[in-house]
Amino acid sequence: MSSNRKILLVERPVEMFTESCFEVVEEPIPGPAEGEAVVKVEYFSLDPAMRGWVRDERSYLPPVQLGEVMRSGGAGRIVSSKNPSLPVGSAVMGMLGWQEYALIGGTTGAMANPLPDGIELLDSLSLFGSTGVTAYFGVIDVGETKAGETFVVSGAAGGVGSIAGQIAKILGCRVVGIAGSKAKCSFVVDELGFDACIDYKEGNVAAALRDACPDGIDVYFDNVGGDILDAALQNMNDFGRIVACGMISVYNDAEPSAGPPHIFHIVTRRLRMQGFIVIDYLARFMEAAMQLGAWAAEGKLKNRVHVVDGFLSAPTAVNMLFTGENSGKLVVKL
Amino acid sequence: MSSNRKILLVERPVEMFTESCFEVVEEPIPGPAEGEAVVKVEYFSLDPAMRGWVRDERSYLPPVQLGEVMRSGGAGRIVSSKNPSLPVGSAVMGMLGWQEYALIGGTTGAMANPLPDGIELLDSLSLFGSTGVTAYFGVIDVGETKAGETFVVSGAAGGVGSIAGQIAKILGCRVVGIAGSKAKCSFVVDELGFDACIDYKEGNVAAALRDACPDGIDVYFDNVGGDILDAALQNMNDFGRIVACGMISVYNDAEPSAGPPHIFHIVTRRLRMQGFIVIDYLARFMEAAMQLGAWAAEGKLKNRVHVVDGFLSAPTAVNMLFTGENSGKLVVKL
Repeated sequence: MSSNRKILLVERPVEMFTESCFEVVEEPIPGPAEGEAVVKVEYFSLDPAMRGWVRDERSYLPPVQLGEVMRSGGAGRIVSSKNPSLPVGSAVMGMLGWQEYALIGGTTGAMANPLPDGIELLDSLSLFGSTGVTAYFGVIDVGETKAGETFVVSGAAGGVGSIAGQIAKILGCRVVGIAGSKAKCSFVVDELGFDACIDYKEGNVAAALRDACPDGIDVYFDNVGGDILDAALQNMNDFGRIVACGMISVYNDAEPSAGPPHIFHIVTRRLRMQGFIVIDYLARFMEAAMQLGAWAAEGKLKNRVHVVDGFLSAPTAVNMLFTGENSGKLVVKL
Repeated sequence: MSSNRKILLVERPVEMFTESCFEVVEEPIPGPAEGEAVVKVEYFSLDPAMRGWVRDERSYLPPVQLGEVMRSGGAGRIVSSKNPSLPVGSAVMGMLGWQEYALIGGTTGAMANPLPDGIELLDSLSLFGSTGVTAYFGVIDVGETKAGETFVVSGAAGGVGSIAGQIAKILGCRVVGIAGSKAKCSFVVDELGFDACIDYKEGNVAAALRDACPDGIDVYFDNVGGDILDAALQNMNDFGRIVACGMISVYNDAEPSAGPPHIFHIVTRRLRMQGFIVIDYLARFMEAAMQLGAWAAEGKLKNRVHVVDGFLSAPTAVNMLFTGENSGKLVVKL
């Protein structure tokens, strides 16, 4: 392979990503200048947040510009380097973008983190990447989750949700998942050890939560927003916490849709609803990774990754996050 | 006057309070048993929360039952007593209900707090009552408001809002009110010293907030919910706080109406939206009252009370809170 294929964003999606949003271009593999290195990318991380990154709005990261490589997490190995801290052969992860070779370091503005020995590339994008770390700080810091509480998580079979629920279980909570199929519910209960799981496609979620949480909900870890957030609001205990991690149900809306009608319970039940973005926790990444690693080594934490094959599959695979076709953390293998 | 008139709740309102919700009955003035005292009520406190108290739903206080005296804050003086800590002639405030004479203490389940010397009955229901204390803990504790921040408050001319904005001003914030008329806006700017005020009846509140808050909003003190909450959400800064004190715009809804469409900014801007009820701060009432008193004595804090005359006017006057006819804390003088 002597060329570098890149997938550029050329049109902003109105709702879901479509074929016309992207264009594949082929360029020579870059050569590193002083301080730079070239990564051969082996995996892309696909995340719900990507839909937000292409929206032309002020947000926590600048929007991806038209004509730029699509922003994406990724992992790979250094194949050429003029940077002594990024030696050839070493494994790295970072915002590598949808391309086969990424130029990092120096004045490129792109950075990647070398992986410690023994960390697999795939784990670096899931359990030890932003997915696991998001789950960790959401449960521990934002949710202030304590033993004996009832913890509910939506997107329970997804990357963040599956780890968040397991962490709450380790902490000693009753853990109830919400997911979009019978198979996903079986996965989180039978394989991940959740106490119960609600298939939101089977009827009234508020009523199902009432049954599954006889003592009410103390912490609701929200990945989806919309109607399911409203169902949770109706079942929150006084002084409950809502961890606002994501609202995937509205990311593809062309115009903002109506919010949850039961939001007034935030007042009457003295709830705290708090948003967070994992990049705010950069300085504490190591704390999370070490704890997650220890739990995984003890067999308490399972890491499910959903791998889709092929560089060119990225633009269609990303929509699986929104249609709910993935189970576990979604990645593309190049 | 040898009888005690009481206003009973006899029918739950569907939307606004109506005449048929209440019935006036006349009974002999009670005589105190051992440990009890009788208060001659001089003022009723009218508060938006009263609409919630008559809703037949689990909440932070049990719903007022049909046939019971309407629950209400009030202030008055002891006229007969068999309780040494509640001597005849002393001034008290508490949940006295809509009645001319209230039996308190002993096994009645009703309590009232004696007022320190020098505190007027009217002030005990406004600045030093739940109104002022709500504003205090909302701004200081829930909002964590700091000097130099931009602070926005809705219901700015109301009891809580007018005090909350003044406290934020004392703390060194840029303070922008939102109110429902030109007169109210003039009141909060010219008399209370707010930096600006938006009349929400004059067009697009989100755009007006953008103009009035060039540095964005750090703390939004919400008394109203609904569209105005949504307008604030669109203008919040990263890590902003929403003090969820009340949502008066939805209290009269027969069915919950749609929530704010821009709620997803809670995630992207890492907002914290937190509800609270002043009774959770009972143990710290004195701290708030002393600080509010000191500010008032220094002339930094003005207390505007809107007095409506006559016992029988309570059932109609309470709706002024929802139609926006009051300016300042609303009370009924018996």
